Amino acid sequence: MNTFGRYFRCTMFGESHGPALGVVVDGCPPQIPFSPAHLTPLMERRRPGQSPLSSPRKELDEVEILSGVFEGETTGMPVAMITRNWDAQSSAYDTLRDTARPGHADLAYHQKYGCRDHRGGGRSSGRETVSRVMAGALAMQVLVARGIRIESRVCEIGGESDPDRFAATVLRAKEAHDSVGGILEVTATGCPPGLGAPAAEKLDAEIAQAMFSIGAVKGVEIGSGFAAARMRGSVHNDPITSAGYASNNAGGILGGISTGAPVVMRIAVKPTPSIAQPQQTVTMENKDTTVTVEGRHDPCIVPRIGVVAESMLALVLVDALCEQEIIRAFRSR
Amino acid sequence: MNTFGRYFRCTMFGESHGPALGVVVDGCPPQIPFSPAHLTPLMERRRPGQSPLSSPRKELDEVEILSGVFEGETTGMPVAMITRNWDAQSSAYDTLRDTARPGHADLAYHQKYGCRDHRGGGRSSGRETVSRVMAGALAMQVLVARGIRIESRVCEIGGESDPDRFAATVLRAKEAHDSVGGILEVTATGCPPGLGAPAAEKLDAEIAQAMFSIGAVKGVEIGSGFAAARMRGSVHNDPITSAGYASNNAGGILGGISTGAPVVMRIAVKPTPSIAQPQQTVTMENKDTTVTVEGRHDPCIVPRIGVVAESMLALVLVDALCEQEIIRAFRSR
Amino acid sequence: MNTFGRYFRCTMFGESHGPALGVVVDGCPPQIPFSPAHLTPLMERRRPGQSPLSSPRKELDEVEILSGVFEGETTGMPVAMITRNWDAQSSAYDTLRDTARPGHADLAYHQKYGCRDHRGGGRSSGRETVSRVMAGALAMQVLVARGIRIESRVCEIGGESDPDRFAATVLRAKEAHDSVGGILEVTATGCPPGLGAPAAEKLDAEIAQAMFSIGAVKGVEIGSGFAAARMRGSVHNDPITSAGYASNNAGGILGGISTGAPVVMRIAVKPTPSIAQPQQTVTMENKDTTVTVEGRHDPCIVPRIGVVAESMLALVLVDALCEQEIIRAFRSR
Amino acid sequence: MNTFGRYFRCTMFGESHGPALGVVVDGCPPQIPFSPAHLTPLMERRRPGQSPLSSPRKELDEVEILSGVFEGETTGMPVAMITRNWDAQSSAYDTLRDTARPGHADLAYHQKYGCRDHRGGGRSSGRETVSRVMAGALAMQVLVARGIRIESRVCEIGGESDPDRFAATVLRAKEAHDSVGGILEVTATGCPPGLGAPAAEKLDAEIAQAMFSIGAVKGVEIGSGFAAARMRGSVHNDPITSAGYASNNAGGILGGISTGAPVVMRIAVKPTPSIAQPQQTVTMENKDTTVTVEGRHDPCIVPRIGVVAESMLALVLVDALCEQEIIRAFRSR
Repeated sequence: MNTFGRYFRCTMFGESHGPALGVVVDGCPPQIPFSPAHLTPLMERRRPGQSPLSSPRKELDEVEILSGVFEGETTGMPVAMITRNWDAQSSAYDTLRDTARPGHADLAYHQKYGCRDHRGGGRSSGRETVSRVMAGALAMQVLVARGIRIESRVCEIGGESDPDRFAATVLRAKEAHDSVGGILEVTATGCPPGLGAPAAEKLDAEIAQAMFSIGAVKGVEIGSGFAAARMRGSVHNDPITSAGYASNNAGGILGGISTGAPVVMRIAVKPTPSIAQPQQTVTMENKDTTVTVEGRHDPCIVPRIGVVAESMLALVLVDALCEQEIIRAFRSR
Repeated sequence: MNTFGRYFRCTMFGESHGPALGVVVDGCPPQIPFSPAHLTPLMERRRPGQSPLSSPRKELDEVEILSGVFEGETTGMPVAMITRNWDAQSSAYDTLRDTARPGHADLAYHQKYGCRDHRGGGRSSGRETVSRVMAGALAMQVLVARGIRIESRVCEIGGESDPDRFAATVLRAKEAHDSVGGILEVTATGCPPGLGAPAAEKLDAEIAQAMFSIGAVKGVEIGSGFAAARMRGSVHNDPITSAGYASNNAGGILGGISTGAPVVMRIAVKPTPSIAQPQQTVTMENKDTTVTVEGRHDPCIVPRIGVVAESMLALVLVDALCEQEIIRAFRSR
Repeated sequence: MNTFGRYFRCTMFGESHGPALGVVVDGCPPQIPFSPAHLTPLMERRRPGQSPLSSPRKELDEVEILSGVFEGETTGMPVAMITRNWDAQSSAYDTLRDTARPGHADLAYHQKYGCRDHRGGGRSSGRETVSRVMAGALAMQVLVARGIRIESRVCEIGGESDPDRFAATVLRAKEAHDSVGGILEVTATGCPPGLGAPAAEKLDAEIAQAMFSIGAVKGVEIGSGFAAARMRGSVHNDPITSAGYASNNAGGILGGISTGAPVVMRIAVKPTPSIAQPQQTVTMENKDTTVTVEGRHDPCIVPRIGVVAESMLALVLVDALCEQEIIRAFRSR
Repeated sequence: MNTFGRYFRCTMFGESHGPALGVVVDGCPPQIPFSPAHLTPLMERRRPGQSPLSSPRKELDEVEILSGVFEGETTGMPVAMITRNWDAQSSAYDTLRDTARPGHADLAYHQKYGCRDHRGGGRSSGRETVSRVMAGALAMQVLVARGIRIESRVCEIGGESDPDRFAATVLRAKEAHDSVGGILEVTATGCPPGLGAPAAEKLDAEIAQAMFSIGAVKGVEIGSGFAAARMRGSVHNDPITSAGYASNNAGGILGGISTGAPVVMRIAVKPTPSIAQPQQTVTMENKDTTVTVEGRHDPCIVPRIGVVAESMLALVLVDALCEQEIIRAFRSR
């Protein structure tokens, strides 16, 4: 199941070293301005090779819009977008055809499907997130027209919360042939009250699914998150005033429905599993062996995940906006 | 959207003080033994009124199976189950018809739908979790036949992690007309490798959605969770041996697919928002006012949520088993 | 899969001789007036035992609304409805536990599920259409508010197209221990242009699925239908004028989208398969045998199917209205 | 909604004169042999420009597989395929930007979306069926491995049922600047019993939706179809013997589930609406006008629709096979 969303449905495809990756966005409203120019800024933020902290791989990531856009606007028809793979060095992965990289999905894919495109991680590569950013760029256009704005910031890297120390922390790990993780905060401001619906479509439930669908995410908290477990109700409850909520422990969501306050979440990103150290593992035939993952890997992907998380949040919010519009259309008071 | 699952589809309904709550499970395989006897133990664990720590409300929670079961077995047809509401004291909620309780979805529902069944919280009441436990009981029967077992335990209550102090912590909050939250750990053992699928159907993404769909949940972590953000890759990666994974930071899931190791998660539960203290709030017409939520409320719902979280995990696992069976049926090697 | 609709989602359940049949309508807009009084007229039209032409079975068909309606209006929450089975004479079906009735799904169910509730046909009984009429009654309330009206009429029974001869045709078949089929026309007037969407959600495709989901239907045609295959384009194309379409061969739908002209379809209903004549068949163990289907069966179900077909059309139209509202909400011109 | 299927999900996109058309097939089982060679024979059958009876447009229709296939086999990941548009003469459509062609979806699209890609019909062009054939080619590979075979034949063209007269009938219409329709029969042999499920997933209901989703289809009948309405039950019921069904009025489907007998359907195709005669119509601003549709149009598309209908049937059958495998996996007897 490579489709996100019930109304604004984004079906993603592509492998790290295959011909192309892409997405089809079905259910996009008509008359939304959209062109490659709206894609470039977001694609740039995701692209590696931009600093010594990220992978030196080159991903040109030019996007071709194949359908659903005419004369600079969406038409209501499915919007298909692809980006070609260029700098793929597949032969670097030859030794991994039969060896499972620890912390990766290699063995799980093999056990499930009985076959896989091992080159560069295939479908489970972080490269698949280009599809999410493409879809996110379109979703952002829908949100912009409604005055909704999404931002993210890195809260922690490798246990450090002082931004001045982020670079040094990453470089230290890189020198040790190791990697670090971190924590991101993502915020949406300008959300109207009423987004989300009971039970399975709760806004926080949809957000959590979207965030956990990003490869390296191990935890999600909304508003007060895990800290809520240590608060008393009298402290945690956000007082409501005629001018709005007096605090935001709820993270902008109550009962699964947006309150109008900023929607705030934090996500935990694990350290990149690809490290150039010998690690204990097995072959696809379950023989013990060791593997050292060479290649051009990011020692820390936290900063690059920001735009991916923003994109996933954008998809969830547009989907919720669509649901909300159905309710509004039939309400008489 | 009150349906969980894509294959084992559970559609839930019902309000706290309406005639009944229930669930329709569509896509349940045939020939699964199922009867009210399989429901009782789980329903009992969710039921309030059993200790001084929980609400004194009486919920008899007898379940009637309306369809899909014949001569003690499922038939492959939708299994509908309902439980009647009996001890509802709706008049206790009369003052809340026009007043939003802080920490509750009252105002959000009003803003979204323009109307609501205010009695006892209506659809957003914790009482709706009976539907989840009914569906969970059926899912457990499917899992049992596959040797999969789900358990939960309370890790923390009100910041205390020593179980000997849980009761005292709750009673202290109760005496102060206040409430406490906590942390639960839920584990599934016996899961085969291969459950889950890329992107939107990632097992951890589905689990996170299921857990956040429970009213009071503010955070979810899988395996190492937020601690992963502070580990290095060389420490976080679980070594793989021919005898299995040597550690389980992954929490039994890599790349969204189960590894065969135990699936482990922790969820943060906020303190019950209903407290018998005056709180600042607004009316549905946005006038400032205060509210004191009287009534028979739990000072801590963490222990009662255990069986609900187990049920939700069971739904996710059965759904993933169904998806996995399609893959297996077509695989030739 | 017992759910109809993507937006106005109707999940149906129940067997002919089980405790109850019902439906959960999820995605119903709030503030729609709804009460048992809206159900009765439609339920009455479906009910057997009203004329010598239909089965003498008594189905009281009182509907209980279990959720989603408060103070006479829908709340936006799932609307669950059930009706109990009363006059079931299950023992009359004892001989059919092991014998497949020709023209029925008995053998197919047995082959697929390995078990079945054989009493009265179980889930595949025509009795399951009560769920459709319950959901249809709610959908009609949504349509009424939009000025959309659905009607049906019997065009043919047993090859006769003169209504004066319908009763005689049915009685003649009944006396011969036989049954007859017929053709129904169903029409929706007042539909706005724009209902339906390309490809899988084409309005005519959704209608065809809905109609074929009714047990006895063997054919569906929209507008000119099979006659279109014998027309030339110059005759079939409906001229468009500023006052509207000058003819309606399209049956109110072009490219899968409603044109604003009446939506018109015809459905072919096969003769009731339950007949009191010896017929060649097999046991569930595939031994040759004969069966005579005794019991209180309709010699012709065409008139009773009218309200079922209207209900199914209503579900499709409300679903399309919901989709249409999303598009409208985002359109700027 | 441009997605067909619940398990084998085919999401289609593309406009007649846009950069490309394509499909993403998600849920395709792994280890299915697939390459461009499997696509060519079907694509050739759909391609115009092959006889004086069809349009002289050239559609090269080379397919590029972008993902989901590795070393000649599917991997279980989404299979994306595209074909570029080459011979598009968009300027030929300039006069149609503001004018609605009778029998086409032009006006309906304009009314619904407020904008459209008018070139060559955009998304509502018959050219979109290339996506269906691409997906169908993959589905056929799944069916072949199960011994299921799909065929179609033209039963009627322009009211003629003698194949010797088909060509003359079409040419006569072409000379008169007119067009003709016809009737196709599509058959699947080798289907196991048990495909399909009650209610919304009934095999005949899914087939009807799939067939009506093809642009020009106005009627669908399964097995005896409309003739069933004129038969008695004693004639229509197919006797069952230990060697199989003695007749096939059911068209291979009872109660929505395949019986093991051939699945047989007939579909009515309307005459091509694009004709080079002046026709009465309106502009997008609803002014009366006339239009003569010049361009390279098929006077009869019935023969070319055969492979499209076969493809759609293949999609439905693979989807049903997936559902069936879930049931089988859990059955114990």
